[in-house]
Amino acid sequence: MGIKLAELAVRYGCELHGDPDQVVECVGTLQSAGAGSVSFLANRAYRKHLAMTQASAVILAADAIEECPVACLVADDPYAVFASVAADLHPAPALLPGVHSTAAVSSSAIVPATCEIAAGAFIGANAQLGERVYVGPNTVIGADVKIGADCRLMANVTCYQDIRMGNRCIVHSGAVVGADGFGIAQTPTGWRKVPQVGRVKIGDDVEIGAGSTIDRGAIEDTEIGFGVKIDNLVHIAHNVHIGDHTVIAAQSGIAGSTRLGARCMLGGHVAVSGHLEICDDVYFLGRASVTRSINSPGTYSSVIGVEEAGKWRKLAARFKRLEEMAAKLKSLDRNSKNEQDRGS
Amino acid sequence: MGIKLAELAVRYGCELHGDPDQVVECVGTLQSAGAGSVSFLANRAYRKHLAMTQASAVILAADAIEECPVACLVADDPYAVFASVAADLHPAPALLPGVHSTAAVSSSAIVPATCEIAAGAFIGANAQLGERVYVGPNTVIGADVKIGADCRLMANVTCYQDIRMGNRCIVHSGAVVGADGFGIAQTPTGWRKVPQVGRVKIGDDVEIGAGSTIDRGAIEDTEIGFGVKIDNLVHIAHNVHIGDHTVIAAQSGIAGSTRLGARCMLGGHVAVSGHLEICDDVYFLGRASVTRSINSPGTYSSVIGVEEAGKWRKLAARFKRLEEMAAKLKSLDRNSKNEQDRGS
Amino acid sequence: MGIKLAELAVRYGCELHGDPDQVVECVGTLQSAGAGSVSFLANRAYRKHLAMTQASAVILAADAIEECPVACLVADDPYAVFASVAADLHPAPALLPGVHSTAAVSSSAIVPATCEIAAGAFIGANAQLGERVYVGPNTVIGADVKIGADCRLMANVTCYQDIRMGNRCIVHSGAVVGADGFGIAQTPTGWRKVPQVGRVKIGDDVEIGAGSTIDRGAIEDTEIGFGVKIDNLVHIAHNVHIGDHTVIAAQSGIAGSTRLGARCMLGGHVAVSGHLEICDDVYFLGRASVTRSINSPGTYSSVIGVEEAGKWRKLAARFKRLEEMAAKLKSLDRNSKNEQDRGS
Repeated sequence: MGIKLAELAVRYGCELHGDPDQVVECVGTLQSAGAGSVSFLANRAYRKHLAMTQASAVILAADAIEECPVACLVADDPYAVFASVAADLHPAPALLPGVHSTAAVSSSAIVPATCEIAAGAFIGANAQLGERVYVGPNTVIGADVKIGADCRLMANVTCYQDIRMGNRCIVHSGAVVGADGFGIAQTPTGWRKVPQVGRVKIGDDVEIGAGSTIDRGAIEDTEIGFGVKIDNLVHIAHNVHIGDHTVIAAQSGIAGSTRLGARCMLGGHVAVSGHLEICDDVYFLGRASVTRSINSPGTYSSVIGVEEAGKWRKLAARFKRLEEMAAKLKSLDRNSKNEQDRGS
Repeated sequence: MGIKLAELAVRYGCELHGDPDQVVECVGTLQSAGAGSVSFLANRAYRKHLAMTQASAVILAADAIEECPVACLVADDPYAVFASVAADLHPAPALLPGVHSTAAVSSSAIVPATCEIAAGAFIGANAQLGERVYVGPNTVIGADVKIGADCRLMANVTCYQDIRMGNRCIVHSGAVVGADGFGIAQTPTGWRKVPQVGRVKIGDDVEIGAGSTIDRGAIEDTEIGFGVKIDNLVHIAHNVHIGDHTVIAAQSGIAGSTRLGARCMLGGHVAVSGHLEICDDVYFLGRASVTRSINSPGTYSSVIGVEEAGKWRKLAARFKRLEEMAAKLKSLDRNSKNEQDRGS
Repeated sequence: MGIKLAELAVRYGCELHGDPDQVVECVGTLQSAGAGSVSFLANRAYRKHLAMTQASAVILAADAIEECPVACLVADDPYAVFASVAADLHPAPALLPGVHSTAAVSSSAIVPATCEIAAGAFIGANAQLGERVYVGPNTVIGADVKIGADCRLMANVTCYQDIRMGNRCIVHSGAVVGADGFGIAQTPTGWRKVPQVGRVKIGDDVEIGAGSTIDRGAIEDTEIGFGVKIDNLVHIAHNVHIGDHTVIAAQSGIAGSTRLGARCMLGGHVAVSGHLEICDDVYFLGRASVTRSINSPGTYSSVIGVEEAGKWRKLAARFKRLEEMAAKLKSLDRNSKNEQDRGS
């Protein structure tokens, strides 16, 4: 499993300082890495740990070479190179092709011999898997689903019927793709369910975090673009479109029919209202409440951080009296103008 | 599967404009519907698409008849009629009664022959299902659970022991009904778990979204009223009561022992504190923080929407200095009064 | 199952008022408890129900003895004693040791004969369970996982590979332990996944709520201390450390690499940003947004509760004009000083 630094330098176009025959076998942090480990320096805050590192090699930017006590691979973007090196050293476990005896695979499903279908998995009628798909234990794939090559659906994932998923996607445990959108019509006798007949279409290279839910469209499809990365416990409502390479951190939610542009970034706990248009390259900081469309790229926020509770209580009370403050200010302003008039 | 417009007009009491023999087979949006589709116009924002629609028929209100280029069904509430028509055209898949060979059904459970128990499902001791219940793949129903007729528990649902569920409920994948409430007692050596011995009682016609959790009561029951609709990733804590026909959008949470009235509506990401009483007909806008009981019907909010981050940072900093602003205002007011006294 | 009050008094060191031979068999609230039930009074708000209770006995503090119409057990901390009594009266169901015929247990896994492995459960290669572990229906335990004695993993739980869990832990349905952290590196062609090679280490006596997700570390481990209690739908990101006896209420999230101290308490919907240090004994009220490290024990908040929507709209609009208010205030202050200068 070990790789020589010379090989890594060639593979990723890095300048190498140190012994080209040094072999690295795993990754480590600057603080904890030992012999045989490769580490990286990408975040300035960790630079203080560089001088003491016991890693066998460090991936870093040119400006840190001199402080590095061990071999180093110099990269313009050390974190991106580290990601590749880490994948080389810690590849996903190899598939064990075949269908477990306790899996229930519909006779009309298409499951290439290169796939691994784990214990207790269910694959519905007419579902089609690409080559080398991993379906984890107790994962359920509904009828008519189409999944591209090299996807990995971990344990206890649920895909409802008729979903489309691209190649090389990863879906983590507990995630639910294609449940009914929240479509209900008010009637005098209560809420009437509106059938959700759209699908979910997912591009290539998408990762969906544990426990996240992506609802199927009401009529047309919910669409997740290429390279989208979704963290845990995220909710994507029906008819939402997520542009390519957008990333969404944990516990954020996108309400129905909203369109997020490409390369957007959402921090954790972001709430985006329904029927909005968010343009490309918008960054919402954590806990942002997005209640209007955004047509200008940039960073947006609406979070106010904690204060000690006694202090906060006073601030919140002041906030609730902002109307009175504004009225008082207006009255003072009027008085002041009168004074000035009298004075002049 | 197709239905004549004449038949729909009679069934739902709609005035029909156009060919009564026109058959519709599926639903579509005004923009995308093609021949054989029925669409609807309920939201004013979509009216601009009506004139160009290629649907075979549109369900709409009387004031839009003249703009409709195709057949139309006139309804007081087009969306509610659309919901019914959509259900006629896209019924839930028919059950395949029987118990899959890989399901594990306790010999003491009562499972009518009209039920479909899918692969890998588990049904515990003394559980009782009503007629025509669907239990999806790998769904787990605990001991002593009672489920009414025509319920549909999709794949990978979990019902803990001794739950009561009414008729015609739908529970989506990943939902967990009846897990222990968060009951812990502080002791000098740490937190001691308080056994949660209540149940969850769910009325008829309830829908529970994907990944939502409804905890069992600590001593008495957690209760979900009739016709309640719960979106995805919603948390309902122990001892909560939800009134009939209340709807709760995604990622909202109701803390322990709170009682929500009937016909309430909660937007997404709403947080309701524990031990509160919310009266009937209260509407909380998305991201609302409900920290006190509400005894007057109406709409309530506490959200502040995003601003560009630089602007926001200044506003948040001002907020943190509201006490100083108030003090300054008070001092100016005093000065102004003194000035006036002197001036008079 | 019944226990005599005399026995409970001895067991928990309580003074007993009333018949020592009275037997109690179950718990109840002051309002609903009937003959054979034991209730408790811990929250002042419920004291009004004491005089009318029909419980056979009440656990209460000394100051309430005189108002109690039935037998009572006097305790310094009635709720903690009640927790113990409730556990005596309502013990977790006894295990049925053995492996269900539909479970899939790897031949290299170590599963003591005292364990109960329910239907459809999966236990991966080289996994090791302690004595008397319960693995619920359709729960998945990955390869190389080590689980301590007396743990209970309810139905539909997922543990990824190589997790470490202490003794007496409870993991509720839908929870996912050890999914990949959200590690991605930006590149010119999109986001590159960073392999997550750390583990999750969980102490003794930890409870993890339904649908919660605890990600594995990127390089080093995510760590959950002893006695930590986690409610439903909580997200714990990679590399987070949670100190001993900290409790986290529902739908809260802790972003990557943050360290929470011991004995902290997080209300519901709390969001803690990444790379922060929170000291011991910090209490965050519900919906708090924690955007900076906290090094002083105490209570912190950032929630503003709802107002009627019309009133709120005005307050939010005023908030957005705080900069203008501040400028106006400054200008008035300057004028006032000038007036005073002129006046003097």
